[in-house]
Amino acid sequence: MYRTRTCGDLRHADEGLVVTLAGWVQRIRKLGGMTFVDIRDRYGITQLVFDEKDNAALCEKANKLGREYVIQARGTVRERSSKNANLPTGDIEILVSELNILNSSLTPPFTIEDESDGGDDLRMKYRYLDLRRTVVRKNLELRHRMAFEIRNYLNDLGFLEVETPVLVNSTPEGARDFVVPSRMNPGQFYALPQSPQTLKQLLMVSGFDRYFQIVKCFRDEDLRADRQPEFTQVDCEMSFVTQEDVITTFEGMAKHLFKAIRNIEIKEAFPRMTWQDAMKYYGSDKPDLRFGMKIVEVQDIMKGYGFSVFDNVSYIGGICAEGAASYTRKQIDQLTDFVKRSQVGAQGLVYARIEADGTVKSSVDKFYSQDVLKQMKEAFAAKPGDLILILCGNDAMKVRKQLNELRLEMGNRLGFRDKNKFSCLWVIDFPLLEWNEEDQRFYAMHHPFTSPNPEDIPLLDTDPGAVRAWAYDMVINGVEVGGGSIRIHDSNLQDKMFRVLGFTEERAQSQFGFLMNAFKYGAPPHGGLAYGLDRWVSLFAGLDSIRDCIAFPKNNSGRDVMLDAPSDLEPGQLEELSIKVDIKN
Amino acid sequence: MYRTRTCGDLRHADEGLVVTLAGWVQRIRKLGGMTFVDIRDRYGITQLVFDEKDNAALCEKANKLGREYVIQARGTVRERSSKNANLPTGDIEILVSELNILNSSLTPPFTIEDESDGGDDLRMKYRYLDLRRTVVRKNLELRHRMAFEIRNYLNDLGFLEVETPVLVNSTPEGARDFVVPSRMNPGQFYALPQSPQTLKQLLMVSGFDRYFQIVKCFRDEDLRADRQPEFTQVDCEMSFVTQEDVITTFEGMAKHLFKAIRNIEIKEAFPRMTWQDAMKYYGSDKPDLRFGMKIVEVQDIMKGYGFSVFDNVSYIGGICAEGAASYTRKQIDQLTDFVKRSQVGAQGLVYARIEADGTVKSSVDKFYSQDVLKQMKEAFAAKPGDLILILCGNDAMKVRKQLNELRLEMGNRLGFRDKNKFSCLWVIDFPLLEWNEEDQRFYAMHHPFTSPNPEDIPLLDTDPGAVRAWAYDMVINGVEVGGGSIRIHDSNLQDKMFRVLGFTEERAQSQFGFLMNAFKYGAPPHGGLAYGLDRWVSLFAGLDSIRDCIAFPKNNSGRDVMLDAPSDLEPGQLEELSIKVDIKN
Repeated sequence: MYRTRTCGDLRHADEGLVVTLAGWVQRIRKLGGMTFVDIRDRYGITQLVFDEKDNAALCEKANKLGREYVIQARGTVRERSSKNANLPTGDIEILVSELNILNSSLTPPFTIEDESDGGDDLRMKYRYLDLRRTVVRKNLELRHRMAFEIRNYLNDLGFLEVETPVLVNSTPEGARDFVVPSRMNPGQFYALPQSPQTLKQLLMVSGFDRYFQIVKCFRDEDLRADRQPEFTQVDCEMSFVTQEDVITTFEGMAKHLFKAIRNIEIKEAFPRMTWQDAMKYYGSDKPDLRFGMKIVEVQDIMKGYGFSVFDNVSYIGGICAEGAASYTRKQIDQLTDFVKRSQVGAQGLVYARIEADGTVKSSVDKFYSQDVLKQMKEAFAAKPGDLILILCGNDAMKVRKQLNELRLEMGNRLGFRDKNKFSCLWVIDFPLLEWNEEDQRFYAMHHPFTSPNPEDIPLLDTDPGAVRAWAYDMVINGVEVGGGSIRIHDSNLQDKMFRVLGFTEERAQSQFGFLMNAFKYGAPPHGGLAYGLDRWVSLFAGLDSIRDCIAFPKNNSGRDVMLDAPSDLEPGQLEELSIKVDIKN
Repeated sequence: MYRTRTCGDLRHADEGLVVTLAGWVQRIRKLGGMTFVDIRDRYGITQLVFDEKDNAALCEKANKLGREYVIQARGTVRERSSKNANLPTGDIEILVSELNILNSSLTPPFTIEDESDGGDDLRMKYRYLDLRRTVVRKNLELRHRMAFEIRNYLNDLGFLEVETPVLVNSTPEGARDFVVPSRMNPGQFYALPQSPQTLKQLLMVSGFDRYFQIVKCFRDEDLRADRQPEFTQVDCEMSFVTQEDVITTFEGMAKHLFKAIRNIEIKEAFPRMTWQDAMKYYGSDKPDLRFGMKIVEVQDIMKGYGFSVFDNVSYIGGICAEGAASYTRKQIDQLTDFVKRSQVGAQGLVYARIEADGTVKSSVDKFYSQDVLKQMKEAFAAKPGDLILILCGNDAMKVRKQLNELRLEMGNRLGFRDKNKFSCLWVIDFPLLEWNEEDQRFYAMHHPFTSPNPEDIPLLDTDPGAVRAWAYDMVINGVEVGGGSIRIHDSNLQDKMFRVLGFTEERAQSQFGFLMNAFKYGAPPHGGLAYGLDRWVSLFAGLDSIRDCIAFPKNNSGRDVMLDAPSDLEPGQLEELSIKVDIKN
């Protein structure tokens, strides 16, 4: 027994208790004949006091402690003379009678404080020290609590958590697989699952009825801030359900999490928006509804007045930024640069200020009368003090996506994207298929097992791009936290789907034969959804990147710089696996 | 909404209700003008009735159903005329007014019954059908409940579940790693973790204090009934703890599981046995204590009477099988064959029957007087009707292990190993090191991070083999369900340990540098343990193999015969990964 209490739980009421604490030295201060040591553990910080007059040798020992030493201290709880209202233990201190140094510490390469002086790379190399920082640890505590609440919620509804295998088969359709050479089956490889999609569908065929799993998934893709080669999915599937059943169940889960984790009670149903409307009004299939600033189309108003940029395009759209009429020339230039960046890709930006008297002052005034500009103003429902920003082009979808970027940028600038405000939404009626110009074929927008809306099945032959799927995404604050669909459970429809996707019968059979075969033995209607746990945790934690809600994340080259993984193998290992390294220059 | 109730929950009290059920056709019987269809889902079986007189067309439709068709039926709950006491729903049936066929089914390749006619290979190929069998599904429901209870117990004690990465670095020390080529780091490989051992220790260095994780681990070893290439560990670690603290915490968890899952209340503390005693008295570090039959050493009694087999060995030991004196010559020959099998490896078996009058009748009577045999009898505390079985050799440990096999065999034969009786035990004081004759070096018995018992540290220099570790295993019914240790938290001691294990400084640094480095920044005293979830579930389920408590297990060649994994990759995949298949004949 190294301790009788933790460093977070002593209060005024404990005065007079003799306690033993163990933890890390956070800070040492000398003041007159006294030495104050803040001792830290996961649960908090407590002040230890050593009094030179009382015990000089012990005080001397305390004076020799360094930051991050691991110590054990025994002493008596007493009221502090100068209380610290910022600490839960701030009313008390421990007058120490016994001090053991359990371990010493080198000086850490960065400060173990909420605001550290360590850069990203250094903190990742010493991640075990970075994780000592309360702000980082809190994210992982939050993650634990979220996973725990998710399990409770789903268990209460009769969902069974079933572990599916990590060593599965490679399915080149979709993202790139990570693969694992098999020693016992030379020349053959397992793949790590991109998701347990097909396996959870098999569990439905097995009659498991309600399945979930919080599970690692793997994608060998190029990385960015919100992507890791391994990520965690809350994977769920239900039998004998319609889209409405799935949405109801998981909207309930989201509300439970908001209540349990953030103490936010959401009473009303989440709004729903069709994919068509999301694209039309927000230029995104995951609109951030914390603020308005809907896209307005003005080609019917603005064309035909001799402004060739507008006259030569089919689509003109814009947003109205409330109260931004005071933007300076410089600020507007910044916005113009923003939309012209290759990541956004617009040609230019037209703006119009609404003056205090209601007149419109635009960058294209010479082409338009106040009368036309007033029509435009009304289309945007713009008020004095607002700033209208307009983009245009011939590819409406492309311009809408540019407007989405501009809208989010303006949302940031105007402070509309408060991390403590949450706006939830279901996006429904996704297209089943997406045309790929390069490959000249359709791809499944979600995956090849998504059910078309039965009303649209006839369109599969005549206009596949117009077929709506029974697919839905849950979007919070512009982040797609989860998505799913009702699946095809009819093997004939699945066959047809593979044909539409350009699979030969042979390829469909070799990749998904086990599933198509399973569907011949009584597959129930089923559907489900998967949440990205990393994203959801980072959303609740108010983080911009998912990295800080992962204990040991990888960097943008897929490296764990702390473990130094990946690394070279010993030649014998390769030989046993019947593979050779073969680097082409 | 496909159903209003499940197939398991209707009772007599529901009579008169109009309900809709959905599920699989389990069985169809025609009787007079009636058709009875048993409809099955995860929750149970309900009888549907179709009455020809009532609705001939509907009855005709029901007659055409096949086994495993997926149907939806609407009708009225009514009391059955002939009740079925074996079914929870056996008091009622549904008089069907509406029947929809949701999906048809081919005839399954084996019967979907608790006792199936399908062989192992067939059932694995169609695992999705095998999982429909209630006996198999129950194992996975048990697994879910166990994992859920484990999480509840640990969460209540302040343990945080932290996910550690699956893509880590290879550490050739220990079992073989599965490896994953990195596309972004050509020629380099990740490894899949054999356990999160080093990472959980880092989390202790980070101050996480109490960590757990239910996590997949991977070992590329040759397989047998209780081993799978991927298996699930309940991995736990605590800071500022002694061995006693860890044992208390996890004994509590075991008791919680016994109560919550099997409704067995264990009040008393689990017995503890030193490794030395376990080996001496049971020939095993995981003795099955559901029965006695301790090993008794009799070399002091039996040597020196001219029986050269005994006279030429240093160790003679045996067990006393209660009530087995009636064993026939043939049964004893079977036992002799058993101990001579290469898996056991004894040279022969000496036996002695205790007759009704207390005299001893042995296979070596001609060498021993009744007086000596009586001494032997007393050593075994044998009673009339018992059978003493004796093995001998010069390597005491080897013979003890043979006696262990014989003891377990006799336990089986005598019915002492009841699957519904549980006997729990801690084995403690494991040796720290194990001498490897072939490599002429010591290996860590658990792993290189296990702390020696401080009392024995001086022996590290003089007699490393005698050093006891602070290591402990939890054994239930002869199965090692979990094990762990207090870890080294002092970097100097860790250095010394690596030296004893014959690591060069360079190799220690390259493999475990990150951990040794971490220990320089204030590592707390810590320790933990890991349970094998698969084994524990199979123990509670009364299964002989872990396979049937895993949804999609692999066979002895590491293949998933349902998915047909592992499989060949497309050449482009290999090229992207900078590797080549290189099969040597």
